[in-house]
Formats: sequence, structure tokens, C-alpha cells
Amino acid sequence: MGQVANRRYRLRHRPAGTVTPVDLEFGEESVPSIGPGQALIRTLWLSLDPANRIWMSEIHYNMPPVPIGGIMRGFGIGEVVESRREDMRPGDLVSGITGWADYAVADATNLAPFTVLPSPLPGPPGSLLGALGHTGITAYLGVHDIGRPRPGETMVVTAAAGAVGSVAGQIGKARGARVVGTAGAASKCDHVVRGFGFEACVNYRDADWRDQLDAATPDGVDVIFENVGGQVFEHLLDRLNVGARIALCGLISEYNSYGSPTPAQGRIGVDQILMNRAELRSFLVLDHIDRFPEAVDYLRGLLDAGTLVHDETVVEGLEHAREALNQMFTGANTGKLLIKVAEPTSVR
Amino acid sequence: MGQVANRRYRLRHRPAGTVTPVDLEFGEESVPSIGPGQALIRTLWLSLDPANRIWMSEIHYNMPPVPIGGIMRGFGIGEVVESRREDMRPGDLVSGITGWADYAVADATNLAPFTVLPSPLPGPPGSLLGALGHTGITAYLGVHDIGRPRPGETMVVTAAAGAVGSVAGQIGKARGARVVGTAGAASKCDHVVRGFGFEACVNYRDADWRDQLDAATPDGVDVIFENVGGQVFEHLLDRLNVGARIALCGLISEYNSYGSPTPAQGRIGVDQILMNRAELRSFLVLDHIDRFPEAVDYLRGLLDAGTLVHDETVVEGLEHAREALNQMFTGANTGKLLIKVAEPTSVR
Repeated sequence: MGQVANRRYRLRHRPAGTVTPVDLEFGEESVPSIGPGQALIRTLWLSLDPANRIWMSEIHYNMPPVPIGGIMRGFGIGEVVESRREDMRPGDLVSGITGWADYAVADATNLAPFTVLPSPLPGPPGSLLGALGHTGITAYLGVHDIGRPRPGETMVVTAAAGAVGSVAGQIGKARGARVVGTAGAASKCDHVVRGFGFEACVNYRDADWRDQLDAATPDGVDVIFENVGGQVFEHLLDRLNVGARIALCGLISEYNSYGSPTPAQGRIGVDQILMNRAELRSFLVLDHIDRFPEAVDYLRGLLDAGTLVHDETVVEGLEHAREALNQMFTGANTGKLLIKVAEPTSVR
Repeated sequence: MGQVANRRYRLRHRPAGTVTPVDLEFGEESVPSIGPGQALIRTLWLSLDPANRIWMSEIHYNMPPVPIGGIMRGFGIGEVVESRREDMRPGDLVSGITGWADYAVADATNLAPFTVLPSPLPGPPGSLLGALGHTGITAYLGVHDIGRPRPGETMVVTAAAGAVGSVAGQIGKARGARVVGTAGAASKCDHVVRGFGFEACVNYRDADWRDQLDAATPDGVDVIFENVGGQVFEHLLDRLNVGARIALCGLISEYNSYGSPTPAQGRIGVDQILMNRAELRSFLVLDHIDRFPEAVDYLRGLLDAGTLVHDETVVEGLEHAREALNQMFTGANTGKLLIKVAEPTSVR
């Protein structure tokens, strides 16, 4: 395969804000050759996640930072094109850390092992990285373990149109909660209410978003599924009921400041947490790989029942990955954001 | 009893900082007379707690604010001096909301019912309001339910010389944790290490307190038992280990700002909670009255084994209660702060 190029992103500098072409260099190199115990994976689909931006910083977030000079880390679905492993055959579809590259090597050194996917696939590839993948599992863990909404309670989900938020809210609804979302555009809010069935959704870019949020949560807030941070989060804390639970899943409004001279810190007042005997807990899906089967079973049940809608935004071409990631932080996508890298060469 | 005066504090204004004699008026009035189903209680010991200051504000903290004009709320131990209740006889010792007054009426309207104490008393009166009372139970709940220190983990307790902190740290030690305290004076730190057996204690008034705290927690921080808020809390958050637990028990550095034009809000950065998948949970002992027996059993076991030391600061005379409460916020006491109001008139 020597004459085929491997397009890849290598991290050259830790970004100080929006990721530039100088920070994350896109270029071509030769396709890796494999040895015993290795398989060569051709990336088909790449998952873009807020954690990508964290791994470019110096923060250790379940995994060490991407080393300077290293290929950018990312989860994806690929196809085995060559194998010297007994458990993988050419044509197998696998999921794992494909990285931001056309080709990856699957071996014992992977930070997370590649998994061979069943054939036929149990769902569209996007859903396997989205509602049935680490994104949906994130929502499941945050809602079931931390938010624990009860019937009739009010649950607010920030970044409700996003990959995790849209699933989290739908799980909350399935548990009987009254689910309210926030998003950054009227069209997104419309999608959150009509597409995902939330009770209401507030556009935080409206001047009167505080009043709208108050009106949408007349009985206060029992559960927050927090993905964003900042002023909306602060305002929600002022509306907590006694015994409220906050699943702190992300602070996406901040990640692009990591590496800058004045990184955001997600400052909040904890007085309302104290006075309301509330619980705020963070979690990371990669810490709970043992629970993936349980989560996927649950999510598949909701999908099959029509209670859960998987939504995705697909960007064609690996060459657009950096730009698409940057746009995730300005809220360009709804649902799971994916890069379609290539078509499978063989179908088994 | 008509000619005996009832000295009492009535709340005239919600304080805007330190509690003044105008806010909380000390004076005399006639002793209440009782009717059917009531008993007259003479206060012997009064417990001073940070919550007293919260109840003077407009915050509903398990119980409604003390109404303007009402007698100041407080827990204490008293003696039944007259009874028209079948379950109380003159001479019985009781615990409950005696209020900041020489006399209280025990009846069905009490926000928390009075309880007849066993005779002989199961410990010195101070310990029944301290290590074996709501103070010790607070420490128990925060350590067992939220902090959950495991052997070898590092647990930091702020306000470690105080009533709750001193017990919390000793429970942490009994569970095998390496317990580090913070306090506001060298003499207090000395007491925390020698009297309560903490591994180390840092005086947050020292210029190099950050370095001292870093040196005392070389392996990072697994558990915070937080009573204070402010800069020390912020610094501890920067030292969290993955999976850390924070029992948010109080923010005593703030309560005296409640009612002021710029109340403190205990602002913290939550980014370290996110990145370390940590848990921050608040709790209030009065929400868990059903668990008092379990907690008291545990605490008595530690006391009997000599693993737990009850410590108290006793101020003589109800007339000093307001001043003593104010001094609690400047850190004048170690251990449980009590007002000795009167000697029992009868011993049964």
C-alpha cells in the first residue's frame, strides 16, 4: 500500500483558543506498515467530540494529552484492510481510536482497544458513534447515575441540540421528567422541541433568556444536565430545588480558552448548592467501559420503541475536520457531529 | 413563676453583617405560662451554630427564617420546670429548640419536637450538643455518605479546630485516611494535630499557606470536608485527584455577609471538578433525623474507644450569646461552642 497517501492531522502546538492550521497540521505521509499482532485500519467515520479540544491542551482527561508531534486523537469507525492479528480479518468493521487520519494501526499499544463490530451493523454507523456509542452512553450515565430525574421533576439540559444533550433530554423524558433545553439559535430550539420532544427550549442568545428560563421552570429545577458552563449555568443554580442533582458533563463554553493566557474556570457560586443540599457530580464515559453493554441495551430499547431519536450532522471529508471541530464550539451542528472520511472498500 | 424574668433575644432586623444589638435585641419579658399539652422548659445549655446566622437572614435552610420580632432560634438542653404533657415531668432534661431564651414552651408547634433525655445523661451535656449531638452527626453524615475516605487517601478538613471539623477529621482518621486540617491560628493548628491527631494542620493566615498545604498533601486531595469556602477551598480544588469527593458542609466565611449589599456567593471554579470527575455534595443534618440513632451509635463507639475526642468552648451567661456567635465567625472557639445558661434546679 506504499503508494497510497495517509492524510493525517499532527498536533504541532497546543492551541491558545480556536485551533489553527499551525497548531494542528494537516498533511500527507505514507501509510504505516504493520507487523505481527497488528492490523491496518482505514478510517471510514470520525467522531468529533468536545474532548478532542481538551486532549490538545495539557490536561490529562482520562487519557494523557496528545503529544506534540502526535497524530490527533479521536474515536471512529474503520475497516480492517490488512491484518496480522487473529481476531481481525480484512473487511471487518471496527470501532476505536482511529485518530484523525486515513489509516491507523490496531495493536496492543492502543489507549483503548479496537473492537470488531458485528455484521451486519446493529445500526447506521453514525448511531454507533452517537446515540448508541460513547455519546449516548455519556447521556445515559449522567442521567441514570447522577441526574436521576423522577416523574414530574423538572430537568434542564444545556446544549440541548447537541449530541449528548439531545439524548440526555430524551432519556429524562422517558423517565417521566419535564425536560427543558437551552440552545443558541431559534432553529435549534425548534428542533429540540419538535424533533426531540422537549417541553420547552430557551435560546440563550435572546435578550430575555433569563425570563424565558424562569417561565419554563415555574416549579424550580430538580436536575441540571450541564454541558456548557457560564451565565446560563449560574442562573440555573439560582433556581435549584432542595435535593437537586447536577450532572456536570462538560463546560464546552470554556474549552477553547484552554491554553490561552486567561483560561476560563467555570466559576460558579456554590452557595445555592449548599443551601439546597444539592449534589454536583462530574463523570467521563471512558471511566466506565464496563457499563457500555448495559447502557447500549437501554439506549437500543428506547431507539426501538421510537422514544429516542438519533440525530447527526455529517461533514464530508477528513480535510474539514479541524474546521468542523472549531464550529462545534460556535454551535454549528445539531446532534452528533461526524466526519465521513471514506466509503468501505469491501462489504462482507 | 410570674415574677421571674425571661431573658431572651428577639430578632428586630435581619443583620447586614456582624450581628448588632439593634438586630438582635436582648431583653427581659415575663415567663410564658403554659396550657394543656404544653411544658415549660428552662434552658440550661445553648448550642451556637453557624446556622444561627443563616436563620437570621431570609434564607430558608430546612426551617423558615426566624420571623422579625421572633425569639432567636437555637438548639439547646433544658429542664422541664412545669408540665401539662403526659410525656414530660418536672426535672426531666430535654433537648430541642430552646431558643435564645431562659424559658421555652414545648408543645406540638415546635419546629423540631423536644426529646426527653435518658437519666442519667449518656454523656456530659456539652457532648450531647457536640460530638454526640447534631454537630457530631453532621460530621458523621458528611464523612460516611459523601467523603467516604478510604485507607491511605488524603482528606482535608477546613475549620479543623471547629465543632464539626474536629469530629469529621477524627472520623476520617478512624477510617484510615491521612487527615490534614486548616485553621486560622498556630495555637489552633497545634490543637488539631496534638488534640485531635490530624497528620498536619495549616494556618491559613500564614503568608505561605499555599505552599504548606501543597507540602501537606503530596499525593493530592481525595476528600475535602468543606466548612469555610473562599481561597483555601479554591486552592484545594486545584489539588483534587480523579474521583475526589467534596462534602460541602458549610461556607462559614460567607454567612456574615448575608443581608449585606454584596453577599458572598462562594464562587469557585468547577473546571477541576469536571476534569477530575469529582463529586461535590451538600447536606444538612436536620434533613436526616431518621439517621440520628445510627450516627450516635457510631460516634459513641469512637468516643468509648478513645478514638474520638469531644472538645468544647463554654461561654457563661446567656447575655454573651450574641457576642459569642459573632466571635465564632472570627474563629475564637475550638470545638463545640456552648452557652451555659443556668444550672439545673432539680436533679433526678
